[in-house]
Amino acid sequence: MSEISNPTSRTRVVREPHRGVYDRAEAYRILDQGFICHVGFVAQGQPYVIPTGYGRDGDNLYIHGSAASRMLRNLDQGIPACVTVTLLDGLVLARSIFNHSMNYRSVVILGTAHAVTDQEEKLKALQILSDHIIPGRWTDSRQPNEKELKATLALKLPIEEFSAKVRQGPPLDDEEDLSFQTWAGVIPLQMVASEPIDDPTLQGEIKIPEYARNYVRKH
Amino acid sequence: MSEISNPTSRTRVVREPHRGVYDRAEAYRILDQGFICHVGFVAQGQPYVIPTGYGRDGDNLYIHGSAASRMLRNLDQGIPACVTVTLLDGLVLARSIFNHSMNYRSVVILGTAHAVTDQEEKLKALQILSDHIIPGRWTDSRQPNEKELKATLALKLPIEEFSAKVRQGPPLDDEEDLSFQTWAGVIPLQMVASEPIDDPTLQGEIKIPEYARNYVRKH
Repeated sequence: MSEISNPTSRTRVVREPHRGVYDRAEAYRILDQGFICHVGFVAQGQPYVIPTGYGRDGDNLYIHGSAASRMLRNLDQGIPACVTVTLLDGLVLARSIFNHSMNYRSVVILGTAHAVTDQEEKLKALQILSDHIIPGRWTDSRQPNEKELKATLALKLPIEEFSAKVRQGPPLDDEEDLSFQTWAGVIPLQMVASEPIDDPTLQGEIKIPEYARNYVRKH
Repeated sequence: MSEISNPTSRTRVVREPHRGVYDRAEAYRILDQGFICHVGFVAQGQPYVIPTGYGRDGDNLYIHGSAASRMLRNLDQGIPACVTVTLLDGLVLARSIFNHSMNYRSVVILGTAHAVTDQEEKLKALQILSDHIIPGRWTDSRQPNEKELKATLALKLPIEEFSAKVRQGPPLDDEEDLSFQTWAGVIPLQMVASEPIDDPTLQGEIKIPEYARNYVRKH
């Protein structure tokens, strides 16, 4: 987990290279905290960017969806893809407009995704996805039947060519701006869960499970 | 603002078409609540997806960044781009694994972005971006000088070919699963701001302005 990836010319962070992180462990911390990715692919010369859920299993990312999805149908054929995960941590207010920024952590993975065709691996992939988004939920749910498994497409993307980018901390104003009379600092931002809402069709008294009542993303 | 866009074969929502929204006003509500987009573009056959800030001015989206950015350099040449904005509203826990979902609102815009070269329009674009992310901040800040303006690239993407996708509400389980004994419902998720953090180099007593102390995204 302490491996440093060797950035290719495609994943090397060009803009503000000091923000580039090529450490696999750091990239995995970001991937493990997020659960929505934006998948990029090309169809007839046009790029598409689609949000979807994901899960990580070692050095592979699993993405899932319906077999009917335009995105996943295309990815299935093994076309080049880009998966980006972005965690927003705050707004950075500098004295100068120019030095305003955001605190964030992001990972960009380039690669080719392929459909998981083996039924056993597909079931495993779906459990990894479920456990990634809400640990504990899988075993509490009605398991997928054969028809549902068929209607679901799971894709596997090896995490080989990747880079992470991280910006944290206070604004960085130019020396001569420090006396400019305006407030400067950071507005922290965070994705938080609030009180779960019962499905109106719940039958009988079913308590909200712990994993839903205290949902947090690990850091 | 009540215009209904005519979805092209590229923006028509194929998967779960009942979630497709082609109303321009609804798409703009989503764009106005978000402020991070994921921009997709293609370079040498490889798709890239990069997070960045944006602002909306009527039927145009402004995206900005450094003139050194690989993404913006490419977009500047007028290559096809895709801009996607995703707002996550909750996790949807069904009885069956298969019917688990997320509540979200997303907009996908296809088009060609071009650099704003006119200096006056560029300054206007930057103000729109600033006002979009944190209203009130522009006038409190040290304005961009000529060198900074030169080092900044603003891009304009007309909002012509777009679609929005919205999923809200409780889980939708199959009839025969309703008696399955597990909790079902929604865990609401929201991006929230917490107490602003002073820049350690603040000189003198400068109060946190209202727009930073009570930062919320409008709905």
